[in-house]
Amino acid sequence: MSETATSAGPAPEAPGAYGPTDLTVPTRGRPKASYDRALVHSILDEAYVCHLGFVRDGRPVVLPTLYGRVGERLYVHGSTGSRPLRMAGGGPAADPGLPVCLTVTHVDGLVLARSAFHHSVNYRSVVVHGTARQITDPDEKLAALDALVDHVVPGRSADSRPADAKELAATAVLALDLAEVSAKVRTGGVNEDPDDLRLPHWAGVIPLVTRYGTAIPDKDLDPSVALPGYLAAL
Amino acid sequence: MSETATSAGPAPEAPGAYGPTDLTVPTRGRPKASYDRALVHSILDEAYVCHLGFVRDGRPVVLPTLYGRVGERLYVHGSTGSRPLRMAGGGPAADPGLPVCLTVTHVDGLVLARSAFHHSVNYRSVVVHGTARQITDPDEKLAALDALVDHVVPGRSADSRPADAKELAATAVLALDLAEVSAKVRTGGVNEDPDDLRLPHWAGVIPLVTRYGTAIPDKDLDPSVALPGYLAAL
Repeated sequence: MSETATSAGPAPEAPGAYGPTDLTVPTRGRPKASYDRALVHSILDEAYVCHLGFVRDGRPVVLPTLYGRVGERLYVHGSTGSRPLRMAGGGPAADPGLPVCLTVTHVDGLVLARSAFHHSVNYRSVVVHGTARQITDPDEKLAALDALVDHVVPGRSADSRPADAKELAATAVLALDLAEVSAKVRTGGVNEDPDDLRLPHWAGVIPLVTRYGTAIPDKDLDPSVALPGYLAAL
Repeated sequence: MSETATSAGPAPEAPGAYGPTDLTVPTRGRPKASYDRALVHSILDEAYVCHLGFVRDGRPVVLPTLYGRVGERLYVHGSTGSRPLRMAGGGPAADPGLPVCLTVTHVDGLVLARSAFHHSVNYRSVVVHGTARQITDPDEKLAALDALVDHVVPGRSADSRPADAKELAATAVLALDLAEVSAKVRTGGVNEDPDDLRLPHWAGVIPLVTRYGTAIPDKDLDPSVALPGYLAAL
């Protein structure tokens, strides 16, 4: 089979949706995949860590890492000596990039059915397939690093010292375009076989909520520096 | 290079630790990897979803999925028609199994440094490399499904209807031994360059805490079925 046939690009897209492709249409599984851009963005923007998968010596590797989003492009970063960054090569002109799968998942609740079989979790996930390429343009690299910091706390990049030349040189940034993307969301209650409804087991959903704890100032923090509003509002 | 040389098995192990291997010793990155069994187990037992990576048509795929642990073995399950389950084949006797990387991550806090470069998160992660094989022994399959349910809420498998023959036939279970395993944990405060300490930016840690919300009973729940103690205690 030709390479073209096995790795078709995104199909023509609706304005608010990604085009489904062979890689993003699941063979099985409820719930169905969604290709809605706003949904994908909201899931990506709410999480702190993604799971980045790549192939090394023919075997899969999945590492947690921070990321940032600018429009339809995701960025991950790392030491220039780290494995995935080295594997992604020197940029678009230099090599074909690193095939990756970047996945983000929120667990929103535990779904306890009367039957073991129908236990589940409520969740929201996004799976991005694509080729990560190292950013070499200095302006895009700076913007990507701002996006990575602002992903941790929106607005934070404007309230911190930007990377200097030495830090920039030590940091590699990979870009991954949002093209082959799908989201899955499970919400709501228990799906149970009708015959099981009379069983004497409690059934329902236990919500899971992530909350911010009280900010812990750095031990060396100048006492005159107050907690900024964008952190107090968390 | 021979296959033996590229995929060496686990090194001799200390009783409380996994043996580091080529796959589990990172090339870079603070914090250092840990091979402590108790730490690995605690990180695995606290999360609800893992990210399972495998290779399909030469490309990485990373999917979120539930899992369970029994001693030094992890289990994941799915429809017998799902891709990774089909790719893992019919069991140890039938095929070589599916190379996987199973990763679990907790994000415990946002680390806000004065410098953009030193922003980070506090986290705990486990990365398991290995070959997943489909369970064919009926007793192990039942025990694995109990472990999957008890992973959602400990003790829950004893308070739900076990899978019947039809459900068992529709469910495939993969086993992954904890052999090539490492954990990474970042805790504590900001690591900052001394020159940055006088900068006028707030610095410190914002803890992240996951909490259980109020249980939502199924709309069809018999009002005589009270919330069991193991759920009220969450």
